[in-house]
Amino acid sequence: MSVKPVSPVSHDLDMALLEKIDGKTKPLGSLGKLEDLALRLGRMQESLNVQLNHPHILVFAGDHGIAVEGVSPYPQEVTRQMIYNYLQGGAAINVFTAEHDIKLLVVDAGVNHHFGDCPGLMNRKIAMGTANFLYQSAMTPDQCKTAMNHGAELVSEIHGQGCNIVGFGEMGISNTSSAALLMHHFCQAPMEDCVGRGTGLDDHGLNRKTEILIRAASRASVTEPMDVLCQFGGFELAMMCGAILEAAHRKMAIIIDGFIVTATLLAAVRLEPHVKDYCIFSHESDEQGHRRMLAHLGVQPLLRMGLRLGEGTGAALAFPLIKSAVAFLNHMASFQSAGVSTGTNHG
Amino acid sequence: MSVKPVSPVSHDLDMALLEKIDGKTKPLGSLGKLEDLALRLGRMQESLNVQLNHPHILVFAGDHGIAVEGVSPYPQEVTRQMIYNYLQGGAAINVFTAEHDIKLLVVDAGVNHHFGDCPGLMNRKIAMGTANFLYQSAMTPDQCKTAMNHGAELVSEIHGQGCNIVGFGEMGISNTSSAALLMHHFCQAPMEDCVGRGTGLDDHGLNRKTEILIRAASRASVTEPMDVLCQFGGFELAMMCGAILEAAHRKMAIIIDGFIVTATLLAAVRLEPHVKDYCIFSHESDEQGHRRMLAHLGVQPLLRMGLRLGEGTGAALAFPLIKSAVAFLNHMASFQSAGVSTGTNHG
Repeated sequence: MSVKPVSPVSHDLDMALLEKIDGKTKPLGSLGKLEDLALRLGRMQESLNVQLNHPHILVFAGDHGIAVEGVSPYPQEVTRQMIYNYLQGGAAINVFTAEHDIKLLVVDAGVNHHFGDCPGLMNRKIAMGTANFLYQSAMTPDQCKTAMNHGAELVSEIHGQGCNIVGFGEMGISNTSSAALLMHHFCQAPMEDCVGRGTGLDDHGLNRKTEILIRAASRASVTEPMDVLCQFGGFELAMMCGAILEAAHRKMAIIIDGFIVTATLLAAVRLEPHVKDYCIFSHESDEQGHRRMLAHLGVQPLLRMGLRLGEGTGAALAFPLIKSAVAFLNHMASFQSAGVSTGTNHG
Repeated sequence: MSVKPVSPVSHDLDMALLEKIDGKTKPLGSLGKLEDLALRLGRMQESLNVQLNHPHILVFAGDHGIAVEGVSPYPQEVTRQMIYNYLQGGAAINVFTAEHDIKLLVVDAGVNHHFGDCPGLMNRKIAMGTANFLYQSAMTPDQCKTAMNHGAELVSEIHGQGCNIVGFGEMGISNTSSAALLMHHFCQAPMEDCVGRGTGLDDHGLNRKTEILIRAASRASVTEPMDVLCQFGGFELAMMCGAILEAAHRKMAIIIDGFIVTATLLAAVRLEPHVKDYCIFSHESDEQGHRRMLAHLGVQPLLRMGLRLGEGTGAALAFPLIKSAVAFLNHMASFQSAGVSTGTNHG
């Protein structure tokens, strides 16, 4: 994959956007984070009237060789079982995307199961799961590039259909282990700060997972983003990384979910730093490490709901707030148009 | 006003509700605050299948005699100007309620303006604003009771139309001063901790406001909720207090907004402690004091967005999260129904 360039957002309209936001019939700054969000969306779209068109969430699923080491409370077959759950509309992400009018696409990036002809599932399978990165590279460079290309193509397709805002989610038993290793490398943080309970490990399980991931990290010394992805990533993470890069290249707004999506973003930001300009950080997950990753990126999440589910659920839950930011920017009256007096600030 | 009794929520269904929530296809507890919200709504409605019907937000508006002391950056006429803005659909609360399918009612509880025949405005005017509580009681006991009765009747009407979830908002230049005095009395907190910048006072304005409110508080020694409301409240606050009590009496879910609504709730909780069982705390405002009030009540807000606008905007912005909690409770598949394996917790 040759990474396409990502331009920084333009600040040309900043004065006009701030004037518009400050002129709305409300005390200055009183819509808090929504005001910052409106400004940032205006920059991304280079417009004073932001539009959110054909919102999508793409859920990438893949299996992980490391799962045999028992780093998750759930068996690997849960990945495929959850795919069937998505296709039947029964998972949290189905419910939240339906509730908030977001189109959901489910992508098999490398699940360890032959789905055959499975309506509703996008087959971009790289292999039947990655190799066990405790002993060898999770994937080959070719597999990593192919995955990234598939992700980019998927985003290119939905963009062609008019989509200008996309959230990402993931499913893959043991993929918090991959994410922890990405965080360890990109944030240069001690492994203990990167490893969390995932779907619900107890203390014993957490210690064991940490020990295994420390051993894995010591196996290969890598620093380049593509090398880290190859060595310790997952097919769903690599595909998402390609998708994020393509979305930023096309100046789409990108809704970042929790721990695993943010870890993947770290790789994308290493490749193209301005990717961050297009990202909306939907929430701070309860998975330990996520807060530190957000701090490393220097960003503030919209929600702190104690979520740790993945699937893009945080992205879906934050979407109504993003719509609200756009609605106030586009539709609220100004002091001038409504004939409302402005204030002094000393009473 | 004779306050109607408010029953505590029933815990009879707790086991069944928790079993339903824990049985959903997600790691245990991974929907964080949404899980607690689903449980609480199930208790309020005494049902395993929560329904949110005909959501409303009622905005109560009133003027305040204390405004002549210059405790707000905005002149008093902004209250009536904002009423016209609401009626024309240009305010933040119009935009957010429209975006999230919430019916908005605007109530004149005591604005210092003759609106005449004004379609869309509910006339429950008690007087042309309260008296200046620096020198005398803001209202008479009769005015306070009448206001509370009007609030109760309004809620009774929308309940009769099928509404089972209602949020409250307010508009009234200088009403953070009333709210600060309510907080001072009900939380027994020093005035400095209760007074904030409101719509945007600078340091000088803030010091002046604090000094004025300390003088006002020293004028009358009151502890009973109705006495505090009479002495230092506003017509919109008293009407909202009656509305909150009626909503809780009818076991409706109540969405609490920011600083002023929460201060009003403190009075309602003093009168009927179980009111709190029916309250959903939408957000923590940036107005200093709100965090402490929430801590006093021992509750967690859904959002922390740095809002300080009032009007019920936080309640409207939180509504999609409440809908999401209901959606997951009602529509997500269970491990059993979806054939998904459950986990151990040691990996």
